Amino acid sequence: MAEGSIWEALDKAGHYGLRNLTAIVDINRFGQRGPTELEWDLDTYRRRVEAFGCQALVVDGHDLVAIDEAFGRARQATGPTVVLARTVKGKGVPEVENQPGWHGKPLKPELAERAVAALGGVRQIRVATPRPEPVPAAAAPTGEPPTMPRYDKGAMVATRNAYGDALRALGSRPDVVALDGEVSDSTRADKFAEAYPDRFFEMFISEQQLVAAAVGLQVRGYRPFAATFAAFLSRAYDFIRMAGVSQADIALSGSHSGVEIGADGPSQMGLEDLAALRAVQGSTVLYPSDAVSCAALVAQMVDRKGVNYLRTTRGKYPVLYDNEDAFPVGGSKLLRGGDDDDITLIGAGVTVHNCLAAADELAREGIKARVIDLYSVKPLDRDRLLDAVRATGGRLLVVEDHYPEGGLGSAVLESLADIPEPVRVTHLAVRGLPTSGTPTQLMEQAGIGVRAIVAAARAAEAPGR
Amino acid sequence: MAEGSIWEALDKAGHYGLRNLTAIVDINRFGQRGPTELEWDLDTYRRRVEAFGCQALVVDGHDLVAIDEAFGRARQATGPTVVLARTVKGKGVPEVENQPGWHGKPLKPELAERAVAALGGVRQIRVATPRPEPVPAAAAPTGEPPTMPRYDKGAMVATRNAYGDALRALGSRPDVVALDGEVSDSTRADKFAEAYPDRFFEMFISEQQLVAAAVGLQVRGYRPFAATFAAFLSRAYDFIRMAGVSQADIALSGSHSGVEIGADGPSQMGLEDLAALRAVQGSTVLYPSDAVSCAALVAQMVDRKGVNYLRTTRGKYPVLYDNEDAFPVGGSKLLRGGDDDDITLIGAGVTVHNCLAAADELAREGIKARVIDLYSVKPLDRDRLLDAVRATGGRLLVVEDHYPEGGLGSAVLESLADIPEPVRVTHLAVRGLPTSGTPTQLMEQAGIGVRAIVAAARAAEAPGR
Repeated sequence: MAEGSIWEALDKAGHYGLRNLTAIVDINRFGQRGPTELEWDLDTYRRRVEAFGCQALVVDGHDLVAIDEAFGRARQATGPTVVLARTVKGKGVPEVENQPGWHGKPLKPELAERAVAALGGVRQIRVATPRPEPVPAAAAPTGEPPTMPRYDKGAMVATRNAYGDALRALGSRPDVVALDGEVSDSTRADKFAEAYPDRFFEMFISEQQLVAAAVGLQVRGYRPFAATFAAFLSRAYDFIRMAGVSQADIALSGSHSGVEIGADGPSQMGLEDLAALRAVQGSTVLYPSDAVSCAALVAQMVDRKGVNYLRTTRGKYPVLYDNEDAFPVGGSKLLRGGDDDDITLIGAGVTVHNCLAAADELAREGIKARVIDLYSVKPLDRDRLLDAVRATGGRLLVVEDHYPEGGLGSAVLESLADIPEPVRVTHLAVRGLPTSGTPTQLMEQAGIGVRAIVAAARAAEAPGR
Repeated sequence: MAEGSIWEALDKAGHYGLRNLTAIVDINRFGQRGPTELEWDLDTYRRRVEAFGCQALVVDGHDLVAIDEAFGRARQATGPTVVLARTVKGKGVPEVENQPGWHGKPLKPELAERAVAALGGVRQIRVATPRPEPVPAAAAPTGEPPTMPRYDKGAMVATRNAYGDALRALGSRPDVVALDGEVSDSTRADKFAEAYPDRFFEMFISEQQLVAAAVGLQVRGYRPFAATFAAFLSRAYDFIRMAGVSQADIALSGSHSGVEIGADGPSQMGLEDLAALRAVQGSTVLYPSDAVSCAALVAQMVDRKGVNYLRTTRGKYPVLYDNEDAFPVGGSKLLRGGDDDDITLIGAGVTVHNCLAAADELAREGIKARVIDLYSVKPLDRDRLLDAVRATGGRLLVVEDHYPEGGLGSAVLESLADIPEPVRVTHLAVRGLPTSGTPTQLMEQAGIGVRAIVAAARAAEAPGR
């Protein structure tokens, strides 16, 4: 009850009037290393729970009749109920009862024997409880495939807008639900909210509960998409980590990634999200460069297992692909390339556009640059990279709008770690603390803009390097 | 106020009776995309604040006399005060007053002109306020260097114990303070707490506030060390990220890292912390293998800039080093190695011990393995790695008790990305979802134990690979 996330949860339970929710708090006054902050101050627990919009029922946690009565009252409640059960740790065994120092420690055999005797000896008690009543889970998809959005090649569209368009299209499936952390006009989850208000959940600025609610929804068979700024997902990192450990199937969208967001400054820039999300057990990490590929990836996220993370970009960039193109998770796209390329430029998201512009400029200097859009950061298209290594003599340049640790560059390096061919990777990433500016200014300042790519490619190509 | 971290903060402020703390909440009923959850429900705000142990003063945020009176009452309070100020967004400018849709949007020039006129025209108002009274900041260190702990080579000591020993030793400096998230008997911050109870802060199970309080303490000139399980620091990831952006100087210790913790299962295992912490702006990441190196690193953390993260291990392992050895941040140790090594084994923390045992077994098979203890994960000892690449024909084997993404292996690969020599890195890491077991069982199961290292080194050495 000391974790803020508990209060995010009770607040949302109260706000949405979840009368089928009953939380039971076992208050035995002990933590791991000593007394808890509130010990047996049941009155403070009660006032906090009530202030957060829930019915609080204080009971003696050893009084079965009182517990039963509390559950009866919870059934009649018009909102969520929290049963605050005062208990005595180790009750009934005088040697350990209400004593500190027993967290996570098994009793020694002799003491265990005395404890069993003190509790009345070995007994086989079975209490038959009624099964939970069936509640309507998510309706199964109708089989009618959603009509995904289409974009004109060259049109200027932000991938965050494509996220919203694709999510709204997926809304034709009744099992798709969306959540947002009070920034839906930025993440563009508002497109879904407008079309399907009953299946949109405003979680306000409480990212831990945003992810927790998504995990809960998928338990009931829904396909949740939760969105906020990429930077703010860091608030929920433990919940995302535990979603991975729990093998929950959720989709997350982090908008406003990288220095590309421009004016808002570093507190709002997701610059460590690729590292953090790649390191989640069983995760998928996607970072599309254009609206067509973004929509295609969102369409796949809906049925994927595990934690699926989509990184979107704030600004508008040209649509690069045809609506008929395929973007399998684990794949990539070759945007430029021939039989005699000198170097491979690898980007994802916004840096794909910088790579294309750099390749054009390098071509004017006689340097032939292959360009790869590595939209699937995890899993990675290793075959495409191996081809590139062979085609361009191991000369790779990776450029990412992310800190240098653990992101796209690391993903490429990890993938090629044990190949016999020599590989030299020039890695352009955001190495300093960014400031505020225009997207182009900040990308150039960070050394991930067109000029930086051209200069680095030229240097990598220079004889005698 | 929807973030749980707010309630962690107010709870601690109330618990510790911070009567010099006055928080001001501007309640204008709007969020970014629309109304906030509680809008102008000042009474609910008041009840929540009071339930969390703070004095709540509800004022009209446009009434200067009321604000002044509230500040006067805050000065007299025996605990923290929260001024809940009801305000009207855009007040005084009819065209925007109390209207949604103005978050982060500058007024267009003509509207801005009308707004200035509506507010009384351009004025230069200067209000002279009294300067804050000087409060005692941290006492400067006396100059007497702390007497750091010493360990006998070969003795079995857990690095988390060495953290506690070293922290207690540093306590002789009056500017050193320690915080813990209710697990000090596990992180061993309890050693400091026993010796210096006045400078130890129990933050209970609220990791966001654990890090927030550390950031606050360093503003006042203290040198804070905050500890919890490595896994639980993920709860505070945004606070750590923002400590980096804010260029705060803090020390963090994450204990119980990796599958090595054994029985407690994956929810308690820090397996993504190296990726997450490496990706923090300006961070330092340290992962000692023995008590001597751990104590030496803790001694350096006290005066370092930025976010300094120490990863410690649950179990006891032999002391490898002499008390006189130096362990500079950015350094490494060569534990085995000669002029004709066949392969380089690279570990950090617990895997250093596995590498040493593997090297012994490989030696019996005639394979000469160099062993590097890469205790400084960020910054990394690139020169040592370059030597190893040259000495062992580019054959490196990195083994880490961490997921494969973004950790020690990635750090090594990033560091060697652009060298001309061919490098083949065999990367052993925790690739599946761990279960519960003994440390040895789990490390073998994950493929990071002695047998796995021996087998992988043998394969890397095999002709025709």
